[in-house]
Amino acid sequence: MPVRCAIVGASGYTGVELVRLLDAHPAATLTHVSAESAAGKPLSASWSGLLGVDDRLVEPFDVGAIRAAADVVFLGLPHTVSARYAPALLDAGLTVIDLGADFRFRDAATYERAYGIVHPAPELCAEAVYGLVEKNRALLPGARLIAAPGCYPTATALAALPLVEAGLVDWLIADCVSGVSGAGRKPGPRNLYCEVQESVSAYSIAGAHRHRPEIEATLGVPVTFTPHLVPMVRGMVATVHVRPTRPVSLAELRAAYRERYAPHPLITVRDDAPPATADVRGTARAVVHVALDEALGVITAVCVIDNLGKGASGQAVQAMNVALGLPETAGLPRIPLLP
Amino acid sequence: MPVRCAIVGASGYTGVELVRLLDAHPAATLTHVSAESAAGKPLSASWSGLLGVDDRLVEPFDVGAIRAAADVVFLGLPHTVSARYAPALLDAGLTVIDLGADFRFRDAATYERAYGIVHPAPELCAEAVYGLVEKNRALLPGARLIAAPGCYPTATALAALPLVEAGLVDWLIADCVSGVSGAGRKPGPRNLYCEVQESVSAYSIAGAHRHRPEIEATLGVPVTFTPHLVPMVRGMVATVHVRPTRPVSLAELRAAYRERYAPHPLITVRDDAPPATADVRGTARAVVHVALDEALGVITAVCVIDNLGKGASGQAVQAMNVALGLPETAGLPRIPLLP
Amino acid sequence: MPVRCAIVGASGYTGVELVRLLDAHPAATLTHVSAESAAGKPLSASWSGLLGVDDRLVEPFDVGAIRAAADVVFLGLPHTVSARYAPALLDAGLTVIDLGADFRFRDAATYERAYGIVHPAPELCAEAVYGLVEKNRALLPGARLIAAPGCYPTATALAALPLVEAGLVDWLIADCVSGVSGAGRKPGPRNLYCEVQESVSAYSIAGAHRHRPEIEATLGVPVTFTPHLVPMVRGMVATVHVRPTRPVSLAELRAAYRERYAPHPLITVRDDAPPATADVRGTARAVVHVALDEALGVITAVCVIDNLGKGASGQAVQAMNVALGLPETAGLPRIPLLP
Amino acid sequence: MPVRCAIVGASGYTGVELVRLLDAHPAATLTHVSAESAAGKPLSASWSGLLGVDDRLVEPFDVGAIRAAADVVFLGLPHTVSARYAPALLDAGLTVIDLGADFRFRDAATYERAYGIVHPAPELCAEAVYGLVEKNRALLPGARLIAAPGCYPTATALAALPLVEAGLVDWLIADCVSGVSGAGRKPGPRNLYCEVQESVSAYSIAGAHRHRPEIEATLGVPVTFTPHLVPMVRGMVATVHVRPTRPVSLAELRAAYRERYAPHPLITVRDDAPPATADVRGTARAVVHVALDEALGVITAVCVIDNLGKGASGQAVQAMNVALGLPETAGLPRIPLLP
Repeated sequence: MPVRCAIVGASGYTGVELVRLLDAHPAATLTHVSAESAAGKPLSASWSGLLGVDDRLVEPFDVGAIRAAADVVFLGLPHTVSARYAPALLDAGLTVIDLGADFRFRDAATYERAYGIVHPAPELCAEAVYGLVEKNRALLPGARLIAAPGCYPTATALAALPLVEAGLVDWLIADCVSGVSGAGRKPGPRNLYCEVQESVSAYSIAGAHRHRPEIEATLGVPVTFTPHLVPMVRGMVATVHVRPTRPVSLAELRAAYRERYAPHPLITVRDDAPPATADVRGTARAVVHVALDEALGVITAVCVIDNLGKGASGQAVQAMNVALGLPETAGLPRIPLLP
Repeated sequence: MPVRCAIVGASGYTGVELVRLLDAHPAATLTHVSAESAAGKPLSASWSGLLGVDDRLVEPFDVGAIRAAADVVFLGLPHTVSARYAPALLDAGLTVIDLGADFRFRDAATYERAYGIVHPAPELCAEAVYGLVEKNRALLPGARLIAAPGCYPTATALAALPLVEAGLVDWLIADCVSGVSGAGRKPGPRNLYCEVQESVSAYSIAGAHRHRPEIEATLGVPVTFTPHLVPMVRGMVATVHVRPTRPVSLAELRAAYRERYAPHPLITVRDDAPPATADVRGTARAVVHVALDEALGVITAVCVIDNLGKGASGQAVQAMNVALGLPETAGLPRIPLLP
Repeated sequence: MPVRCAIVGASGYTGVELVRLLDAHPAATLTHVSAESAAGKPLSASWSGLLGVDDRLVEPFDVGAIRAAADVVFLGLPHTVSARYAPALLDAGLTVIDLGADFRFRDAATYERAYGIVHPAPELCAEAVYGLVEKNRALLPGARLIAAPGCYPTATALAALPLVEAGLVDWLIADCVSGVSGAGRKPGPRNLYCEVQESVSAYSIAGAHRHRPEIEATLGVPVTFTPHLVPMVRGMVATVHVRPTRPVSLAELRAAYRERYAPHPLITVRDDAPPATADVRGTARAVVHVALDEALGVITAVCVIDNLGKGASGQAVQAMNVALGLPETAGLPRIPLLP
Repeated sequence: MPVRCAIVGASGYTGVELVRLLDAHPAATLTHVSAESAAGKPLSASWSGLLGVDDRLVEPFDVGAIRAAADVVFLGLPHTVSARYAPALLDAGLTVIDLGADFRFRDAATYERAYGIVHPAPELCAEAVYGLVEKNRALLPGARLIAAPGCYPTATALAALPLVEAGLVDWLIADCVSGVSGAGRKPGPRNLYCEVQESVSAYSIAGAHRHRPEIEATLGVPVTFTPHLVPMVRGMVATVHVRPTRPVSLAELRAAYRERYAPHPLITVRDDAPPATADVRGTARAVVHVALDEALGVITAVCVIDNLGKGASGQAVQAMNVALGLPETAGLPRIPLLP
C-alpha cells in the first residue's frame, strides 16, 4: 500500500513541486492538500497547470483530517507557522517533513538569532533530523520530524563537504546564485518580472543572510556567504573557494569527491568542466566539480542544484524515502528538462 | 517485455526530449541511440544533463544494429534524410516514427512544393499515418510508418478542429507564437541568445511558412497562418479566428469542444480563461479554450502546447502508444514543471 | 529657454521612462516630479538606476507647486485620477499630457462603457487631442490637453492605417503581443517573474480588452483584437489581417505604406521582412511591414513598437514636441539598445 | 568641428554599441564603418535596428580610406587582428582605440602566455595606454594607442581598487557574473538561446580565464577569479572578497571608496545596499558598494557595470573623450533603460 502523503501549504512554489513529484511517485500517493488562502477552491485555481489533471479541493488546515488521510505530512509554510503546527501533527502520529527553517537548527537560540523571532516549539529542535541525506543518512530511518535543508545551505554543503571533512577548511568563501523562485510567490521587489529580468544583484551580503548560520552549522567552519539573484526561475550555483590548511593535489581532490559521493545516487561528480543549472532542472540531483588553481594553491568547487528540487521539495521527498525505507530515488525525475 | 526503442538523431532538441520521455516510460525502453555528428562519443557529451544518468555511447547509423536492438525507431533528422533512411528500416521490420516532415503529406507533390525538394521515397507517402492522435486515432493501431505532426499544425488543428468539423469554417486565421527550441539546435539568426532575448518578431508571413500547407491539408480549409518567435525555450500558442458560416452561441461552441475532446486524455478544454504555455510545459498535453465575440459574431479559439511535447516528441510517444496498443498516456508526464 | 516639464506619477514604468527621455531632451527640462506613494523620498528610492544621477526629492501633488515649476505636465496616473487632476492643472495654464485612458475618447460614454466607471471630467473629452501624431498631427499645435494613445491602439493603428484610409477594410483582425511592462508595476498574476517567464498566454480575448473600443474609435472599423503576454520587458507587435474589399497588389500596398508614412520621421517602412521588437527597443520609433498572400487574397501587416516608447512615454514626448513647435524627434533616441 | 571617428569591426556587439554611442555624441561623428564579413552591404543588414536610421554602406578595411575620413579609429576585432592592423593606422596619424586584448599588457610575453599566440606587434605594447580612466586618467591625454580594458577586469578593478591602493589586499577572490553578450556574436555553446536561457554556469575556473592575468596586472595582487554566465544580454557583477592585511572599520572603508571615486563622474558609490546590473544598463557607469562582515573580519565589495558599456564600448568612448580633451561623459547616456 502506498505511503499516504499530505501537503500543508500547497499554493506556493515548493508545495506545487511536491504535488508534481508525489503524483509520479510509485510508492506514495497524495491524499490531502491544505492551504490557508486557497481553502475551499480547487488546487487548480492556484495552479492552472493542474486543471484537468488534479482538480481536488484545497482543504482548510485540520489535524484530524490530515491524520485520517495521511501517514506523512509536508509543511510548506512561513517561518514559525510550521513550528506552531508541528506538535499536534506529531502527537497525531504523523511523520512531519518541514520545508521551512523552523527545525533546521539543533538549538532554538541560533534559529532565534538568525530569524529574529521566538521559536514556538523549541523543545522539538533537538529531535528534528536535518534532512541533508548525504550528511545525515544514518539518522533518517524512523525519524518523526525532518527539517528539509535550505537551498543555499544544500548547494554550499554539497560543494564543500569533502573539503571540510578532510580538514582542509578554516575559512570558506561561498558565492551563490539563485533563480527567482527562491524568493517565493509573495510579490515583492525580488520577484517582479520587469525588475528582475535582465538584471543580477548581490543581496544580504557580509553575513546578513539567514542561511549563513545554517551553512556554518552544517559545515562547522566560518563562511563568507554572498547570495545573488539572477533572471531565471529555477536553479542554483554554489561556487566555493578554500585556501587549504595543507597542500593538496588535484588528483587527491578528485578522488576525495568521488569517494565521498559514491554511495549517494543523486550526486554526480564531474571532472571535465563545471556543470550548469540546466543539467539538473526539475530533478533532485546535484552535480559537483572541484578544481585547483595550482599557481595560487586555491581550491574552487562548484555545485549546481534546482533550488526547488534538491534545494527544497525534491530533497524533502528523498528524505521521506530514506526515512521510510523506500528506494532513495523513488519518484524523483532522473533526467532534467532539456533544453 | 518492454517495447525496445531506438532514436536516430538524438543530439537535437526533439531527440533528447525523446530520451527523457522513454527513460520514464513504464512499457518501453531505449536500447539504441545514433546521431551522425556525435557518433562514438557518449550521449552526455551532447547533453551534459545526462552525465551520470545516461552515459551510453552514441552509435553510427546502421540498420542492422537498429534491427537487432529495437522494435520501434524514432527519426529526429533533417528533411529528406528521414525519407532516405525509412525504406531500409521498414524493410527490416521496424515500426518507424518520423518527427520530421517527410511523411506528413499523403502526396509527395505537396511536400515537394512546400519544401522545394525532391522526395526521396514518394511511394511511402500514401501509407504513412499522420500521427495526430485526436484526428487519426483509428488509423494508428498497427501502422508501420507514422509521421509525427509539426508543432504549428498540431496547435492550430487542436484549436480549430471542432469548428472545422462542424462546418463553420471557410477561412481560418491562425496567429501562432513559438518558443525558440522550435528553431532547432543549429546556430542561426533565430536562436542566438542576444538577438532573440527581449525580442518578438513575426516571420514567414503571408503564406510563406512550410507548415501552412500541412495545416491546410489537416483541416481542409484555407488558412492565413502567421508564426511569431518569442523569447522562451518551450511553448506554443495557436490563436485562431473564424467568422462562422452560420450563427452559433457560446454554449454550443463550448459543448462542441467538450464533446470533441472528451475521448482524448491529453486534451483539456478550459472555459473560464485562455490557458498559458506554462500550463503544459514538459508535458504532451494541450489546453484549449473557445470564446465568442457576440458583437462581431467572431469565434476565437486558443490552444497551448509544449512545442517539444505535444508538438513533437511527446506526440510521437503518444502515437507509438496508440499504434502498439499501450495505454495512450504511458510515459507522458501529467503535470507540468511549475513554476 | 527650455520647456519646463513636470511629471505626476513618476514611480511607475511610464513615469521613469519620461524621466529618462526628458533628461536627454535638448529643449526641455524636468523641473518637478511628484508621486503619491513616493512623496518625500528621493526619486532614486523608487528607481535605483537614478541613484547618483537624479536624486531629487519626489514631491506631493500640488497644483500651485507644479504651476510655479512647469509649463507642461505629464500624468502617469491610474484611470480616473488623471481626470480628477486635469481641470485644475488646465485652469492653472499648464499644458496637460495624460498617459492614461481618461481623455482618449471624444465622448465620455464610450470611455465609461469600456472602463466601467464614471468619468470625473466628461466636459474635457471633446477638447482633448488624441496624441497619435501620425493621425492627428494638425490638431496638436497649441493643444492644451493631449491624451497619449494606448500601446495596443498605437501599434494596431500604425499597422492598419494605410489600409483603412484606402477603404480596404471592413473587418480587421489584430493579434498583438506585449512585453510585461505593459501590465504595470503593481504586483499581480501578470507580472510575477516565475509565472510569466517561459510562458505566453492570450488574455481578455473576444472583445474583452479595454483597448478594443479605443482601436475601433481610432480606425473606424470593427476589430477582432486579441492581446498576448510574452516573457520580455519591453516590446509590442501588432499583426493585422484584412481580406480587402477590393483586389490589391503587393506593389500598391507597399506604395501606399511608403507614401502614408513618408512625412513621419518616427515610422520606418520595411519591405524585405517583418521587423522585430528589438529593432525599436528604447526608442519612440515604429517599424511597419506589409505583405500579401496572393493565394488567399489576404493582407497581413506588422508593426513593432516599444510599448513604453512609441506606445507610451516616447509618444507623449513626441506629441509635446509637435504641440509646442519643437523638432518632432527632439529628445527621442534614434538607435535602439542593440543587442 | 566634431571629432571624426571610424569603426573597424562594426558587425559585432561592441561595434554596434559604438555606433549607438557615437550617433548621440555631441562632439564626435561617425564617418567610416568597416567590417570584413559585412563589407559592401548596408550596416543595417547586420543590425536591423539601424534600418531607416543609419543605412550607410559597410566598407572593406582600407587604411587610406580611414585616414581620409577619420581622426580616431575604434577596433572591434578578434585577437591578433587588431595588432596586425594597428601599426599602419598609427603610422597614418590616427588615434587608435582597441577594444580587444592585444594592447592590454605592457609586455607582450604576458599576453602571449595568456592567449597562447604570438603577438604581431610587440613593440607597441609599452606605448599603449590601458584605458581604465579611473586608474590611468593622467596617461590618456594625447595617447596615440589606447587599449580598452576587458569587461571582467574593469568590474573587478573598480570593486577592489580602493582596497588594493590602501594596502589591504594580499589575496583577492573575485566571483563575477556576465550577460551573454560577453560571449560575442559568433555562434557557440555559450550563446545559443535554448542552452543559455534558464541556466547558469561557472566556466574557465581555477585561473583558466584569459582575463585573470589582466586583472592581476591591473591590481598587482594575486586573484582567484571565477566567471559565471547568466541568462541576460547585458550586465556584469564583480563580487570581491578580501581578508584585509590589517583591521578596518566599515566607516573607514566607506570613506575610502567615496574619496577614491569622488573625482570620477561615471562611478557611483552606494552605501545602503548592493546595486543591480539594471541600474547601469545601456550606460557607461559603474555602481560600487562595500561591506564588512565584522564577525569574520572580511570585506566584500560589489561593482556592477554593463559589459558592453563601461565594460567595452562606453569605456572606449570615455577614454577617447579624456584622450582628446573632450568632456569625460560626452555622448554617454546618464540614465539606464529602466525597467
